[in-house]
Amino acid sequence: MPIKHTLKVDLDDRGYPIYIGTEMLDQADLISRHVHGRSALVVTNSTVAPLYLEPLEKALDTANIRHDEFILEDGEQHKTLASVEAVIDLLLTNRHDRNTTVIALGGGVVGDIAGFAASIYQRGVNFIQIPTTLLSQVDSSVGGKTGVNHPLGKNMIGAFYQPRCVIADIGTLNTLPARELSAGLAEVIKYGLICDADFFNWLEDNITGLSNLDQDLLAQAVLVSCQNKARVVEQDERESGLRAILNLGHTFGHAIETVMGYGKWLHGEAVAVGMVMAIDLSIREGRIDEDVRQRGVALLQQADLPVIPPKDISVEQYLEAMSIDKKAVDGQIKLVLLNAIGEAFVSADYNQEKLLQTLNA
Amino acid sequence: MPIKHTLKVDLDDRGYPIYIGTEMLDQADLISRHVHGRSALVVTNSTVAPLYLEPLEKALDTANIRHDEFILEDGEQHKTLASVEAVIDLLLTNRHDRNTTVIALGGGVVGDIAGFAASIYQRGVNFIQIPTTLLSQVDSSVGGKTGVNHPLGKNMIGAFYQPRCVIADIGTLNTLPARELSAGLAEVIKYGLICDADFFNWLEDNITGLSNLDQDLLAQAVLVSCQNKARVVEQDERESGLRAILNLGHTFGHAIETVMGYGKWLHGEAVAVGMVMAIDLSIREGRIDEDVRQRGVALLQQADLPVIPPKDISVEQYLEAMSIDKKAVDGQIKLVLLNAIGEAFVSADYNQEKLLQTLNA
Repeated sequence: MPIKHTLKVDLDDRGYPIYIGTEMLDQADLISRHVHGRSALVVTNSTVAPLYLEPLEKALDTANIRHDEFILEDGEQHKTLASVEAVIDLLLTNRHDRNTTVIALGGGVVGDIAGFAASIYQRGVNFIQIPTTLLSQVDSSVGGKTGVNHPLGKNMIGAFYQPRCVIADIGTLNTLPARELSAGLAEVIKYGLICDADFFNWLEDNITGLSNLDQDLLAQAVLVSCQNKARVVEQDERESGLRAILNLGHTFGHAIETVMGYGKWLHGEAVAVGMVMAIDLSIREGRIDEDVRQRGVALLQQADLPVIPPKDISVEQYLEAMSIDKKAVDGQIKLVLLNAIGEAFVSADYNQEKLLQTLNA
Repeated sequence: MPIKHTLKVDLDDRGYPIYIGTEMLDQADLISRHVHGRSALVVTNSTVAPLYLEPLEKALDTANIRHDEFILEDGEQHKTLASVEAVIDLLLTNRHDRNTTVIALGGGVVGDIAGFAASIYQRGVNFIQIPTTLLSQVDSSVGGKTGVNHPLGKNMIGAFYQPRCVIADIGTLNTLPARELSAGLAEVIKYGLICDADFFNWLEDNITGLSNLDQDLLAQAVLVSCQNKARVVEQDERESGLRAILNLGHTFGHAIETVMGYGKWLHGEAVAVGMVMAIDLSIREGRIDEDVRQRGVALLQQADLPVIPPKDISVEQYLEAMSIDKKAVDGQIKLVLLNAIGEAFVSADYNQEKLLQTLNA
């Protein structure tokens, strides 16, 4: 069981370890260390199940833990309250008590549904995350955000709920479609942009190796991303202030996802374009120079990510979708902007005219 | 605004005040002290709205807070995830952002639905409770339990979520049906039984005045009940141990409610019978003497509460319903028993044979 890195997320009595490595899924001692009852429910999806359910079930069998499986259809369009209800129906039908553990095996959608179900089943049962996409390894692993979409907005229903542990097996990235690897790299690049200039430089040097699935480089990128996110979340678990910088590119990105329809654009793709838009507005606001755009766009492009917004979204559609975003408070849209590579801040007093220029550009 | 008592519930950064008094609903300064944004949603029901919505709306108008109303059908059978979804639909449709406040105006069902909706809307918005039944004033005011029923079990879906404040207006009890006043007195008596022998004695002396709606006595009973509950919850917010004593009579009571169908028996009525059953088992276990049964039954009867289980529930139905209760862990049913009046404890190693005798009796 080659655990390459163990990172402890420090949140008072809700702290937990993130294990980063390879060949960890079938390890009974690792899983049994964090399953406290005698039963578990594995939530996964139709794409991941054929690839990785068997080793996990083997580990649970070896650890003598009774387990059920819930296999979701793959895709963001299934991230609904109805899916959460279906998970809860299975938990109740199969008599899982409050000592059970819900294990998410899959990407962000699986983690969101499983984590939210765990948070509200009997007012909260144990939860373990086994993220199998780069995006979920660097994003959902830290922060405890769970939730589902509503027709009127993304992630509008959910909870802050921390897992007992996260098992980020880099080996699972070998079967990830190239487009989803790129989407994950968008969030990795985000950490460099918002709070870690050294990491941004490192990414510029290593982006080719990362795209080519070099396991050591990927493990390092996951570690540093999670460290950066943990540093932010530990200071502001419930997003009353600082944590909002993690949303660089997300308000624009969510608007793209909402208007285009969930599932058409990958979240990471929309965030990549959203970050370029945030850079554009930061330049118009006189915060950063043109060279930040050049370096940002170049790195995103090397990671095979889109950098130009879809043509068919009007300014009105952007504003409509952005105003209902969770970051909007009392009608005012807050945005994350840059003062430099590695230095993001949250602003509500940007120039409205310049925002319109960015949306028109 | 005659606030008679203010009790502070002490839960780290989630502590909040409980105001107990009369004529508090239309007081703008009281409500605006705890609404932090510019908007609010009042959740109430079709029975309470005609009586108490107007003064509350007046207070919100005076405080210049934009407000919407959501009026539920009255009754436990509406405590479902569908009701929570409907509340969230209205919040989103009317553009309530994460700075909004959900205000529950009504009894336990309203508080449960509104509180759970507040806890999951945008991963948590502000919540204020204005309980208008004795049961909700002494029970839901403290502890942060919110949730809804599932066809397979009561309160199976929910969250721990603390309000910003509780406004317990004793005047609202004047319009409460006598049967519901009695149901509330069952929970009041419970606090005496589990942890406050002096309060039990006081209740024996004052039960007639309480039943006759003496405002000072009721305010005192609400205060002491909330103090007792707060003392327990402050030590064990998430019910990992001690807090379970608050469930005296509840495992039996929930079984009665589940088997008879939600809404047929009032929760407090089922708990009254459940407490008599817990006393019966405690006597069979040799923990307490027959005189505890006599005093307990006498006090419950003076409060016009049932003390005999419904005849048409079989032992098998009890065991089936009790085994799916949240208090069951790894198949073992935990029960709250008494060592004395004012001294409850949680037990999993009672004699199974004696439990069957109690269920048969």
